[in-house]
Amino acid sequence: MAQTFQEISPSDFFYRNRDIAGFTNPARAIYSAIRELVENSLDAAENIGVAPDIYIRLKFLGEAGREAQVYQLRVQDNGSGIPARHIPSAFGQVLFGSKYKLKQARGTFGLGGTMAILYGQITTHQPALVISSTGSSRIYMYRLMIDIQRNKPLILDRKILLNKEQWRGTIVEFSLEGDYFRAMSKIVEYLKQTALVNPYANLTFVDPRGRLYKFTRVTTRMPTPPKETLPHPYGVDVEIFQRLIQVTPTRNMIDFLRTHFHRVGETTARKFLEFSKIPPSKNPRKLTHQEIVHLVRMMKRFKDFLPPDASCLSPLGKDLLKAGILKELEPEFVAVCQRRPSTYAGHPFIVEVAIAYGGKIPRKGDFTIYRFANRIPLLYDEASDVSVKVIRSMNWRRYKVTPDMPIAILIHICSTKVPYKTVGKEFIADRPEVRREVLNGIREAARHLQRFLTKREHVNRERKRLSIFAKYLPKIAQFSTQLAGKSQPPNVEILLRSVRKFELEN
Amino acid sequence: MAQTFQEISPSDFFYRNRDIAGFTNPARAIYSAIRELVENSLDAAENIGVAPDIYIRLKFLGEAGREAQVYQLRVQDNGSGIPARHIPSAFGQVLFGSKYKLKQARGTFGLGGTMAILYGQITTHQPALVISSTGSSRIYMYRLMIDIQRNKPLILDRKILLNKEQWRGTIVEFSLEGDYFRAMSKIVEYLKQTALVNPYANLTFVDPRGRLYKFTRVTTRMPTPPKETLPHPYGVDVEIFQRLIQVTPTRNMIDFLRTHFHRVGETTARKFLEFSKIPPSKNPRKLTHQEIVHLVRMMKRFKDFLPPDASCLSPLGKDLLKAGILKELEPEFVAVCQRRPSTYAGHPFIVEVAIAYGGKIPRKGDFTIYRFANRIPLLYDEASDVSVKVIRSMNWRRYKVTPDMPIAILIHICSTKVPYKTVGKEFIADRPEVRREVLNGIREAARHLQRFLTKREHVNRERKRLSIFAKYLPKIAQFSTQLAGKSQPPNVEILLRSVRKFELEN
Repeated sequence: MAQTFQEISPSDFFYRNRDIAGFTNPARAIYSAIRELVENSLDAAENIGVAPDIYIRLKFLGEAGREAQVYQLRVQDNGSGIPARHIPSAFGQVLFGSKYKLKQARGTFGLGGTMAILYGQITTHQPALVISSTGSSRIYMYRLMIDIQRNKPLILDRKILLNKEQWRGTIVEFSLEGDYFRAMSKIVEYLKQTALVNPYANLTFVDPRGRLYKFTRVTTRMPTPPKETLPHPYGVDVEIFQRLIQVTPTRNMIDFLRTHFHRVGETTARKFLEFSKIPPSKNPRKLTHQEIVHLVRMMKRFKDFLPPDASCLSPLGKDLLKAGILKELEPEFVAVCQRRPSTYAGHPFIVEVAIAYGGKIPRKGDFTIYRFANRIPLLYDEASDVSVKVIRSMNWRRYKVTPDMPIAILIHICSTKVPYKTVGKEFIADRPEVRREVLNGIREAARHLQRFLTKREHVNRERKRLSIFAKYLPKIAQFSTQLAGKSQPPNVEILLRSVRKFELEN
Repeated sequence: MAQTFQEISPSDFFYRNRDIAGFTNPARAIYSAIRELVENSLDAAENIGVAPDIYIRLKFLGEAGREAQVYQLRVQDNGSGIPARHIPSAFGQVLFGSKYKLKQARGTFGLGGTMAILYGQITTHQPALVISSTGSSRIYMYRLMIDIQRNKPLILDRKILLNKEQWRGTIVEFSLEGDYFRAMSKIVEYLKQTALVNPYANLTFVDPRGRLYKFTRVTTRMPTPPKETLPHPYGVDVEIFQRLIQVTPTRNMIDFLRTHFHRVGETTARKFLEFSKIPPSKNPRKLTHQEIVHLVRMMKRFKDFLPPDASCLSPLGKDLLKAGILKELEPEFVAVCQRRPSTYAGHPFIVEVAIAYGGKIPRKGDFTIYRFANRIPLLYDEASDVSVKVIRSMNWRRYKVTPDMPIAILIHICSTKVPYKTVGKEFIADRPEVRREVLNGIREAARHLQRFLTKREHVNRERKRLSIFAKYLPKIAQFSTQLAGKSQPPNVEILLRSVRKFELEN
């Protein structure tokens, strides 16, 4: 009858609840492990402006049971490398990372790499090997496990090697149970789609049967690396505001607002303080609880803040969106749309949409949907994603679209913080601001599609009309010629051209 | 270019990622807050075998912005109460709780109550009030906030009152931003369905407009309270095994297996050790890493473990399932099925299914689905739930079922640990063992439905046939009577009865 109260470590929490981190079953576990490490590698290379070279090898080690095998996974990159003193925590401690910043990145939970190693440990009980160098004169090699109950790395072995060739990057190798054959198609699809939206990356994957999948970069032009940014006033809550007060060196409200908020200059700060009836000379550390709550509420109501600056985001851009779709699907028509930056809960985000018609797109009674977030493909739990909900809720007949048409819709959301609904980054939550942008983006692209479909209908009708003329005019001409007793029939071509309403392009 | 590494507290993690805990938007936040507190209250009463009396009040305090208002939420119960020294952590610290045990409970993450208070704090910056007594001579009253960065409660005020009336229970009161009007229908539906599967509970809800929703208990018979259990060998992983070794007082493998595993007696332990080729006299603390991994793998392969004992689970039972459905939907037909206990990852679980036809069930071109887990309704993110995936994947024509039929399917999964996919407990992950049981449960109920539909078809055909006889036989009889020159026509009833193939019940 007595209750026993207990505190558990975050590591223990995710160990007990691995479903929420994407490690639900042997197939999904192997998919998630590869994915988390590849995304870390892409971030690590992009951060230092280097075109990523990522090598992934999955080796079969033996049978584990009826539904799983034991594999060894090795992922190697040419990224920034990890400073030696942080290596054990980066891979042996949950909620430790370099990504808790307002900056667009693939990983954001500080969890992925450690979670993959944790899963390997609880299924095979082998230590993980991490080798890394930041390009200095040394390469560090750690063999480590995770103390799940204390959420701390256990270092079993540490070696320092001389880095004669100035190698830079990270290698992670560990064993785990998984079901590759059920995960295979998703893994290959994941790599294919990743290559599509990261065309400056080289991805090499050697699968357990020794098959080589190679996705070679098609450009060396890197996108501008995403920059760290300040919180936008529209999305600030009391907690953020209080944390800023605790650390601010400023001594008056004007300086406080200018220093810590995105796109707030002196004029805006002054106007806002007038609007909120807080004296500009007030020391931010002297604000009362009531004043803080008041200021946060006023920030949401004040109309004159500038919209967030997109320079901290790295969207795909219309060209890449279009090129990717054209290459993959070879459609008859594609419309792309990049929305202007918007903000939710202080985080700027951009929605990009492409709608394609025809070509290789299957007619399956439903649209083919591709979802991306911060340049990574999302392949699971589609039905719960905000984009899919928006697509299902739209009245497509308005756009002359019926479900049996061969239509593909691609949606990319990039943000300093993607509002994922699960720690496994499977789908995006239904935030009202995000939903609105997705809806407007799809509507915009759908209007282009509608024009195309209308025009195609016109063209088809015109073709039909002209084919009737083309069929009968020569006969009428011939008949009239005979009737008039002439020998040379009039030029039908000129006549045909005169009844043509518009030029047919294709 | 330099990376800064950082560790964040679990509280900070959930603050930054509140989408994964169900606090996505103002409407969902208010739904989640009510839900988390109600579920804590239900658990607290059931734990001590008391029929729950829960009082929920939501009071409008003011406008907060365009899309949200400020409310005060108060939830009061007659449950076990919380020992004074644990009150601050239970509501001011994430990953602290009394439910990290192998025992069926509604809450399991040690997160819900604190997360609701955390959300209130970051939107209104007001402290929460917690009043609790275990029925002793004292009532404790705390006014507290959460130090999110350190994941610790901040106690602002503490009072001790004399408990003259021996009151026992917990009251939680705090303010939060939310959108009640958009959440209203879900909240009322949640309470209605909760009352349905907890017919021994009194639920009272006073909404911001002063409307009273009262769900009165229809029985005082409480289900057997769920018991704590040991891990079942089929679902043990290396981590569990190692933790047991660390704490075991046993000195040989037979005792170790008997003491720490569910349904393992001396005979089974001996057989298993023979199967795994580990000497029975071995001291468990002397097992090598390899031996531990080997034993864990062998546990999954060994066929002779007894299936988990259902006594630690508290399913709804066929009667309650049926009664609930009949009361709500008044169907023409209902089939219920309770599967035998099964296990996933060491956790026993039971799947219960009901399928109903006709009555008040709407014909909407798709089934109406009710999902429950450990006696709580799941109302959001239906499309990603394992049950819904199973339902969609089935070939319903086999059961003579078409999508336009008025069919409702109810699925209840109870377990010592429900494999939720999100911390917000919205839907259940696609674990293969769970999927199999759900599939078999639905199939079993669907076969009953098929028999009903087949019979109904027969009955209808028979009715049609008989109505033809009934129409023409009297005429034929009369005509024949005239033809034969008789005055008394033969008794048609006897004839009609003789061509009847079977009795028509309804």
